[in-house]
Amino acid sequence: MSGMTFDDILAKKRYGIELTREEIQYFISQLTENAIADYKVSAFLMAICLQGMTDRETFDLTDAMAKSGDELDLSVFGEKTVDKHSTGGVGDKTTLIVAPIAACAGCKIAKMSGRGLGDTGGTIDKLESVPGFSVELSHQQFLQQVEEIGVAVISQSGDLAPADKKLYALRDVTCTVDSIPLIASSIMSKKLAAGAQHIVLDVKCGSGAFMKELSQAQRLAEAMIDIGKRKGRSVRALITDMQTPLGSCVGNALEVMEAASILQGKTEGDALTEVCLALAGMMISSVFGEPFARGRQQALQILESGAAYQKLIQWLTKQGSDRTVCENLDNLRLSSLSYELCAESSGYLFGIDAARTGHLAKQLGAGRENKGDPIDYGAGIRFLVKPGDRVTKGKPLAILYAEKEITRARLAQIQQELFSFSEQKPSIASPILQMLE
Amino acid sequence: MSGMTFDDILAKKRYGIELTREEIQYFISQLTENAIADYKVSAFLMAICLQGMTDRETFDLTDAMAKSGDELDLSVFGEKTVDKHSTGGVGDKTTLIVAPIAACAGCKIAKMSGRGLGDTGGTIDKLESVPGFSVELSHQQFLQQVEEIGVAVISQSGDLAPADKKLYALRDVTCTVDSIPLIASSIMSKKLAAGAQHIVLDVKCGSGAFMKELSQAQRLAEAMIDIGKRKGRSVRALITDMQTPLGSCVGNALEVMEAASILQGKTEGDALTEVCLALAGMMISSVFGEPFARGRQQALQILESGAAYQKLIQWLTKQGSDRTVCENLDNLRLSSLSYELCAESSGYLFGIDAARTGHLAKQLGAGRENKGDPIDYGAGIRFLVKPGDRVTKGKPLAILYAEKEITRARLAQIQQELFSFSEQKPSIASPILQMLE
Repeated sequence: MSGMTFDDILAKKRYGIELTREEIQYFISQLTENAIADYKVSAFLMAICLQGMTDRETFDLTDAMAKSGDELDLSVFGEKTVDKHSTGGVGDKTTLIVAPIAACAGCKIAKMSGRGLGDTGGTIDKLESVPGFSVELSHQQFLQQVEEIGVAVISQSGDLAPADKKLYALRDVTCTVDSIPLIASSIMSKKLAAGAQHIVLDVKCGSGAFMKELSQAQRLAEAMIDIGKRKGRSVRALITDMQTPLGSCVGNALEVMEAASILQGKTEGDALTEVCLALAGMMISSVFGEPFARGRQQALQILESGAAYQKLIQWLTKQGSDRTVCENLDNLRLSSLSYELCAESSGYLFGIDAARTGHLAKQLGAGRENKGDPIDYGAGIRFLVKPGDRVTKGKPLAILYAEKEITRARLAQIQQELFSFSEQKPSIASPILQMLE
Repeated sequence: MSGMTFDDILAKKRYGIELTREEIQYFISQLTENAIADYKVSAFLMAICLQGMTDRETFDLTDAMAKSGDELDLSVFGEKTVDKHSTGGVGDKTTLIVAPIAACAGCKIAKMSGRGLGDTGGTIDKLESVPGFSVELSHQQFLQQVEEIGVAVISQSGDLAPADKKLYALRDVTCTVDSIPLIASSIMSKKLAAGAQHIVLDVKCGSGAFMKELSQAQRLAEAMIDIGKRKGRSVRALITDMQTPLGSCVGNALEVMEAASILQGKTEGDALTEVCLALAGMMISSVFGEPFARGRQQALQILESGAAYQKLIQWLTKQGSDRTVCENLDNLRLSSLSYELCAESSGYLFGIDAARTGHLAKQLGAGRENKGDPIDYGAGIRFLVKPGDRVTKGKPLAILYAEKEITRARLAQIQQELFSFSEQKPSIASPILQMLE
């Protein structure tokens, strides 16, 4: 690396010249040592946004970031480890459902998850809404739990891909988040460092997701699959709809309740179940080298048998929650105030705006404005109808939970913003837009 | 400007959306108040480099930067004020020649000039190589001198276009110098703030200049002319060759000597004289609204009459130098060591590398590595031949002046790098590549 300088690397990217593996490694090592001024890094990030990166550059960036901090060694579990990642959507509680199903099938899910930085809490926040649940386990405890019951989810450590953390902090404030190579390398660097042999991605697409267009979502999924291939990991992806919130609940405790309800077989045939069966099916088929259809069939059988519900209780109990609490997740504490939104006229529910639902959930207290802000686990929205349902005037559409007062005028405005209606019964498409591997 | 944020402005440029005048004004006002983090500004600069700016945006940026600090009011001189700017080349001492000529014709040259930051000193450094010359005059003294003798050149004040100063400091370290809108606005913001009604630009083109290609130089010249038009200033431009150093001397005192020699009629028909007559002709024809050919004819008459030489002496004396010194500029002190470069074989001199001449001049002590470094006014290079000349083996080609020892081996290497030879007599093209207005 003698004579290499970041200024030369910056100049190459600015003029659209492909960077070598050594140059990208040099950049990440200098970045990790805080040896490059922020104003140079941000100019470089903007050059990447506008000049792009080849698949090879994107892989080298991902690999260098994955190696910039701790890397989990899950080799003790052989080929059975599988991780799942969602690019973030409103009402996405799939981990709480698919992890127990896949664990029942014999997959090993040793998962690190993040706190929410978007509109609603992350998986870690949802799990913490169950009293007693601990998101911090020692490395030893973590591996042992996965060995014993097949699943453990802990809070992502600060030293997993620290280079990504630094880059993300700058991207967030310099309008350089929106770049396929940068998004793909950010997600995949953490997945590679987290050690699972198989990775299943849920790329959200629609108004409530970062990727608004199917073509964008496809390019992102393909970029992440390519990174995995180059590293010898199996990566498969679903592209799923995020025009409408996923499932009927948005909020932390509310989503845990909904997940338990799905696993108990109380809810059937909705979009959330369909997405979860596809994800769990992909995880199972990936780990056991079976066709997808067989993995999905197995996931369905596990769900219907009630085994996955028992696995959820076992998991929550193992990580510190009281068994009585876990067997009665319907009784989780919700916020003390609740408000009904009722239909102002009759018709068919056409859609629920996912992006606005997310913003509302944050306003109600279910998400964070800034890192470290407290969260109201009991706040959120429970929808009582779903797109395609016939509603009559006065029928309750949703219940909002919060600790704060909401005026009638504001409630009317919320209803206007969230729901759209049609006179004809709308056709409801599958939430699964595409499968890639 | 309510609700306007720099983040939104950055996002627009990143996505290639044209910025409004108000947005650009907001950016410059926030920048001037140090209210935007450097890492955001550098990302914005990179976005401008890669997404470009329309002529209208470029003008609005220039105008906002010009208004970010002091603006000179030269209205007392009516339509007679004219400024000249060169984009920087090796051996460019044209200001020392054209300012006296234009002043003799009745033009008013109230000029602010910079110190050199490239390979060789700037006009201010050259003038300071004349003992006693003062580059700091009070505002009152400055205007009075222009009124009396038609010319005054002082060091550029810190508060002329301070926004440009901030941007340039960041561009220099983030690979965002090379952008036509950013270069044009940087130059023109200072020219607009400096107040002259007429502006003549000398855009250098070739290996020794920032613009290597004629097409680039044309685009830069057109951008600067467009800015001037939108502000109601008359702007004309020459594009001149910078493959070869301009004239036979490079270095501060050496260039003053050469300028005096040209004005005394001791040197004729070389590229430097041709460029100076064209520039002075443009300045005169611009101020007096005449055709260029007539302005050039007048410049030639003034040069040949010796009036411009007397004007140089008057000017230098007026700004503090001793008359005896000024009448004997040939006797300016040079560095105490000198080295001859002699031809190693016979042939025709094909070219002298301008870029390498510039780097050599800096090594000899004629330029600065860093802002504020001392300069050796007596250091530099005097060429004894020019392209097209027949040279025989052993003939002296140049003399180097420095205070430091230079080894024989290094001298041989320098000669190899600077000169190229041919067996056939090369055809020598005009140094004036194009005229634009």
